[in-house]
Amino acid sequence: MKLATLKDGTRDGTLLVASRDLARALKADHVAPTLQAALDDWGYCAPQLEQLYNELNDRPSARALELDPAQLMAPLPRAYQFADASSFLVHAELIRKSRKQELPSWWKSEPMMYQGCSDPFLGARDDIVAAEDLGIDLEAEIAVVTGDVPLGVERDKAAAHIRLFVLLNDVSLRNLVPKELEKGFGFFQSKPPSALSPVAVTPDELGAAWDGKRVDLPLRIEVNGELLGEPNAGKDMQFHFARLIEHAAATRPLRAGTLVGSGTVSNRDRKTGAGCLFERRAEEIIKRGEAATPFLKYGDTVRLEMRDAEGRSIFGMIEQQVAAPA
Amino acid sequence: MKLATLKDGTRDGTLLVASRDLARALKADHVAPTLQAALDDWGYCAPQLEQLYNELNDRPSARALELDPAQLMAPLPRAYQFADASSFLVHAELIRKSRKQELPSWWKSEPMMYQGCSDPFLGARDDIVAAEDLGIDLEAEIAVVTGDVPLGVERDKAAAHIRLFVLLNDVSLRNLVPKELEKGFGFFQSKPPSALSPVAVTPDELGAAWDGKRVDLPLRIEVNGELLGEPNAGKDMQFHFARLIEHAAATRPLRAGTLVGSGTVSNRDRKTGAGCLFERRAEEIIKRGEAATPFLKYGDTVRLEMRDAEGRSIFGMIEQQVAAPA
Repeated sequence: MKLATLKDGTRDGTLLVASRDLARALKADHVAPTLQAALDDWGYCAPQLEQLYNELNDRPSARALELDPAQLMAPLPRAYQFADASSFLVHAELIRKSRKQELPSWWKSEPMMYQGCSDPFLGARDDIVAAEDLGIDLEAEIAVVTGDVPLGVERDKAAAHIRLFVLLNDVSLRNLVPKELEKGFGFFQSKPPSALSPVAVTPDELGAAWDGKRVDLPLRIEVNGELLGEPNAGKDMQFHFARLIEHAAATRPLRAGTLVGSGTVSNRDRKTGAGCLFERRAEEIIKRGEAATPFLKYGDTVRLEMRDAEGRSIFGMIEQQVAAPA
Repeated sequence: MKLATLKDGTRDGTLLVASRDLARALKADHVAPTLQAALDDWGYCAPQLEQLYNELNDRPSARALELDPAQLMAPLPRAYQFADASSFLVHAELIRKSRKQELPSWWKSEPMMYQGCSDPFLGARDDIVAAEDLGIDLEAEIAVVTGDVPLGVERDKAAAHIRLFVLLNDVSLRNLVPKELEKGFGFFQSKPPSALSPVAVTPDELGAAWDGKRVDLPLRIEVNGELLGEPNAGKDMQFHFARLIEHAAATRPLRAGTLVGSGTVSNRDRKTGAGCLFERRAEEIIKRGEAATPFLKYGDTVRLEMRDAEGRSIFGMIEQQVAAPA
C-alpha cells in the first residue's frame, strides 16, 4: 500500500491512504491519526489501512480526495531517528579521488553511518531553504522506515522489520562538509532538512524489484529539467538494507518510525550519470583539474523520481526549488 | 516548575507535574497527554501546568501520587532531536593528551556537535544495557530542551527558546569511539541510548544559578557509591547554551522538544574529579603510562545528581545499573 500525510496545520498532519496510481487518497485518521501512530501500532493498523487501500484502488469513492503533492507534508513530517549511510561506495570514492585522498582499509567491509536531521522532514514540494554560498547540493537516496528492531538484530532477520520505503533528497551544504569531517563528529550544519517523496510504500509495492536487500530500479534525477543521472539503486550498493539495519541496531534498539538511508545512489557505470552535483564536479576535477558544474542557486529546481518496469511512478516526484533564508 | 512522565505501558507515558521537593506528583494529561504535546503547544499549556504546580506545592491533594523514580520514564521518552556538544574543553583535551594528539587551531572557537540517539531516552532508573567488553562509560551532562527555534537564530536571542533543563547520562562505548572518529561520520554505535533525570525543570527553578548562559552548580557523580567527581557546570564551559543553540540552528530550524547537550561536564581544577571514567583513565595514562580505573562492568551502578545551594536535589537522581544484553 501507499501512505501519505495531508497538510492540516498541525505538526504531524493527517494520515492518508493513496491509490496505487497516485491519483486519489482517502483520509485514514479513523485508523490512526498520523503515520507515526500507525507505525507505533503497525500490527493493528496495517490490515485496516490495507483494506482501505484495496477499496480505494478497486472502486470510486465520493470520499476520495485528489492526491495533490503540494498539499502533502512528508509522509513522516518528523521522525525520531534518521540513520543515514553511505553505501554506494563509488560516490565517496569519486569525492576522495578528486581530493587526492586514499581509501581506508575498511572501505568495503564497514558501513559509514551518521544520524541526520529528522525534524522536520520536508514535503516533496517544499523549498530547499539555505544560503547559496554554502554550496547547496542534492543527494538522491532511497530509505526504509523500520518497525521496532531489537538491539543486536541479526542480519538475516533485519529485513523483516522494514515497514516502508521512501525516496529522500538529502540536501547537503558542500562548503561546510570538509570542516565537519575534520572534526570527526560527523555532518551537522552541512546537512539541513531533507525532503521525502509524496508517498511511502510497503515492500510489496516494489514487486520483484525488492529482493530483501536492494531495490533494483533506476532513480531519475533532474536539475532545472535536465537529466543529472539515472543510477540503479540495486547496483553497486555495497551494504544492503539488512546490513545497514544490523549496523544501526548493533548497540541500540531501533524503534518504530526510524529511517535508514542508503546514501547517494550512484553506479560504477558512469554512463548512468551522477547521484548529486558533487559527483559530477569531482569527475570534472579528476578529468580537467577543475569543476565546471555549479552547485544549486536560488530558483533552481531538483526532481527525483523512481518508476517501475512499466514506467509508473512508485513514490510520486520530489520536486523542490531552492529559496533564500528569510 | 518540574515535569515528569509516568510509565503507563505506552511509548510516551503520561505527563506529570512534580512537586518542587520531588515527593509528589499530579497527572497533567488533561492539559497535555505527553511532555512532547505540551512542548508542541507550550504557550497554551505552560500556564495551566504552572497553575497545577503551584497548587501541588501549596497544599495537599488526595489526587497527588507519590513520585517514585522507578515508575517514571524519561521526561521525554523519545525526542525528535538530540544535538550533543562537547563544550567543556578539558574533557577532550585530557583524552587527546593521553593519546598524544595535538589540539586543532579551531579548538576554542568552534563547538563540536553531533546528533545522538533520542529514541529511546532511558528513564533515570533504567538499566544501561551494553556488552561490557565495549568499554562502557558514563558521561555526566546537563542539557536543555528547546521550543521552536528559528533557522539562523542570533546568539543573544537563543536562550529565550530554552523551555526545560534535564540531567543526562550520555552512555559511551569507549572501545568503539576511535574507529568512528576515524571515519569522520561521528558517534553512532559508540553511543547507545542515554538516560535523563527523573524530572525536567523550567529555567526559573535554577534561580540565580542560571545566568542565561550556564548553570553554576556542581554535578555530583558516583560509581558504585564512590565519588568520581563533582565538577561545576558553570565553570569552564567554553561554549555556553545560547552559543550551542546558535550553532545547532545555523542551517536548520530546531523544533519543539529538541535536546541540546553540554557534553561531559568537567573542570580545569582537577580537584573536582572526573566527569566520566575515561577522564580518570586519561589522567592515569598521562601520569603513569597506563590506566588503572576499569570501565563499567555488569552490576556496577552510576549516580548523577545536582543539588542547589541549600542541598536540595533539583532534578532527582539518575541511578542506573549496568546489565548484559539479552
